Amino acid sequence: MKAIIKEDGKVKVEDELEDLSLVETVFLLERDKIELFSDDGRKINLEKFFEIGSRLDPRFEIKCIVYRDLRERGYHVKHGLADFRLYPRGKKPGEGAATRYVYAISEREPLPMKYILQKVKMINNIRKTMILAVVDEEGGMTYYSVKEAIFKPGERKVSETKYIAHLVKDNVFLWDSPERALNDLFEGGFYGKPFGGILQLSLIESAYLLEKNTIRIVKGGEEISIDDFFAHCSDTMENFSMIYGVYRDLRETGLIVKTGFKFGSHFRIYEKMDLMAFPHSRYLVHVFPIDHVFKIPDISRAVRLANSVKKRMIFAGVGDAIEYIDITRIKL
Amino acid sequence: MKAIIKEDGKVKVEDELEDLSLVETVFLLERDKIELFSDDGRKINLEKFFEIGSRLDPRFEIKCIVYRDLRERGYHVKHGLADFRLYPRGKKPGEGAATRYVYAISEREPLPMKYILQKVKMINNIRKTMILAVVDEEGGMTYYSVKEAIFKPGERKVSETKYIAHLVKDNVFLWDSPERALNDLFEGGFYGKPFGGILQLSLIESAYLLEKNTIRIVKGGEEISIDDFFAHCSDTMENFSMIYGVYRDLRETGLIVKTGFKFGSHFRIYEKMDLMAFPHSRYLVHVFPIDHVFKIPDISRAVRLANSVKKRMIFAGVGDAIEYIDITRIKL
Repeated sequence: MKAIIKEDGKVKVEDELEDLSLVETVFLLERDKIELFSDDGRKINLEKFFEIGSRLDPRFEIKCIVYRDLRERGYHVKHGLADFRLYPRGKKPGEGAATRYVYAISEREPLPMKYILQKVKMINNIRKTMILAVVDEEGGMTYYSVKEAIFKPGERKVSETKYIAHLVKDNVFLWDSPERALNDLFEGGFYGKPFGGILQLSLIESAYLLEKNTIRIVKGGEEISIDDFFAHCSDTMENFSMIYGVYRDLRETGLIVKTGFKFGSHFRIYEKMDLMAFPHSRYLVHVFPIDHVFKIPDISRAVRLANSVKKRMIFAGVGDAIEYIDITRIKL
Repeated sequence: MKAIIKEDGKVKVEDELEDLSLVETVFLLERDKIELFSDDGRKINLEKFFEIGSRLDPRFEIKCIVYRDLRERGYHVKHGLADFRLYPRGKKPGEGAATRYVYAISEREPLPMKYILQKVKMINNIRKTMILAVVDEEGGMTYYSVKEAIFKPGERKVSETKYIAHLVKDNVFLWDSPERALNDLFEGGFYGKPFGGILQLSLIESAYLLEKNTIRIVKGGEEISIDDFFAHCSDTMENFSMIYGVYRDLRETGLIVKTGFKFGSHFRIYEKMDLMAFPHSRYLVHVFPIDHVFKIPDISRAVRLANSVKKRMIFAGVGDAIEYIDITRIKL
C-alpha cells in the first residue's frame, strides 16, 4: 500500500479513513506492508522515518519498541488515554473492550510516585488494569501490573495488661513478668521476639505499644514520656516518623507487621492472625515520601525480589494520607 | 561462680586466669552461671550490667546479640582481630584454628565500601573468611560471607569486520549487512539484541565496540567521533563513565556482560562463551564509586534477590582501580 506523510507527521494510507500513528507506520514499514512518500513524492525509508519520528515525538523509540513487542505477542493495540490500550488476546477493537492500559517508559526515565498514583487511580476508576512497559538499556521488555493495594482487614487484639519495658540504648526488653508478656504480646499479636526467655521489642513496636498504653517505658529506673521516646526513635532511625506512620496504619487495619530487613524492605506483612498455621507473609512494604521520584531499576529490584519469594511488593507513599501501590511483574 | 567487675570494666572470675569480656559476662549472667559483684561488694544484676556495658562500649548490645546467637548455634567464639573469631563447629580453641572472622553490625549503621574492602583484604590475606553479622530492627540475625570476587577469565573474540552502526536518539542499530552482524557480534560475542532481523546495540555495548574499532557510528549520515559519542552517552545515562569502566574491565577479562535491569542491577555476567549450552548468568554486578557508603538494607535486598535466582551478588567499587566484592547470605 502507498502512504503519504504530511508535514505535521500525519500518515495517510490511500483508501483508508484513519491516519496511521508514527509507531504504526514504523511497524508497517519494517514489514514492507506500506511504501511511504513525502508530500512532494520523495520515497521515505525506515531510517529516514526514524529520524522524522524522533523529531516529532521525544518518546518515539520507546513507544516503537513497546508497540512492536505487543503486536508480536499477538495483541491488538489502540492509542488513547494511555500510550496504548490492549485488547484481550485474539480480540480485535470492536469485538470487545480494551482491558489494559499500557504506559511505555525507559528504565532511564525518572518515575514520580505521584505520577503512578494519578494514573492508577484514573485507570482503576474505569475498572481497567494499568500496565507499565519498561524498556531496558538493551531494548528488552519488562511488564508490570500496577494497582492500588487492598489489604484484608484483620481482628485487632488489645492487651489488657500494662507491661513495663526497659530501654537499653536502642533496644527494648520486657524483663518483668516475661512469660505473660511472651504469651500476650508475642503469641497474641506477634509483637517482639523471644530473647532468651524474655521479650525484646523493636523501637517501632515499642512506640506503637506505648501509644496504645500497653507498655510503659523505663530507662535506668526512670519512666520516659511518649514524646521523649519518639524523639529518641527519631534520633536513632532515619525517617522514623514516616515509617512509623505506615506501621501504625497497617497495625490499625489488623495486619501483622514485622521488619522486612531480610528482604531489603521496611516491613513484611501477614494477613492472618494465626501465624502458627499460616506462617507466610504475603506482602513486603517499602515506605517513601509521596513526592519520591523512583529510579525504575529500584522498582525492578524490589518487585523481582518480592515475587521471587512469592510475595507482593507494596510501595507506601506518605503525604497527607498514606497510599499503597501494588506493583507486580507480569508476563503478557 | 563469683566474679568481680573492676572500675575499668574488666571482669575477673575467681580461680580463672583470663578476664571475661563484656559480652561473655552477659552470656553467663543470663544463664545464672556467675554471680557478679562490684569492687565494693554490691551485687550487680543483668539489668544493671547492661547499663554498664552500653556505657563502656557503644556497640555493646549489637555484640551481645551476635555473640549469644553464635553460642546458641554451638560455636566456640573468641575475641580479637575482628569482633569475633569463630572455630569450626565442635572445635574448641586449641583444638583447631579459627576459620571465620565475624563483624557485628546493626542494620542502621552506615557501612562504607572502603571499610569492607580493607577488612576483607586483611582477612583474605591470612586465608580466613569474613562474615558480616547483621542485627536487624527486631534483633534478628542475618549472616553474610564477604570475599573478593574472582572471575574465570574467558576467551576474547575480536570481530574482523568493521560495521556501520546508526545512532537514532539513544538507540544504535546495525542496518547494514544485518545477517553478518547478527552472526558475528550477537552469536559470536553476545553483543546486542536481534530487533526484527537487525541488530540493536545498547549505548554501553556501542561505546565498547567503538573503542575496539569494530563499529563506526553514524548519525543522520554523518560519522560521530568517539569523544562525541561518549559525551552523548554521558548526557543520556547517569554515571555513564563509571558504569562503562566496569563493563569494559569485565569484557576485557573475557566475560559476557549484559544488562541486569530485570534484577535491578547494572549487569548480569556469563562465564561461558557457549551461551546456547549454558544460558545461566552466574553473577549480578552493581557499580558504586569506591567511596560509597552502603545502607545495609540495600545490601540485604540486592544479595537476597541475586541468591534467590541462583546468582552471586558482586559489588564493584570504582576508584583508581576497580574492586569486586562478592557478598552472599549464608546459614551458620
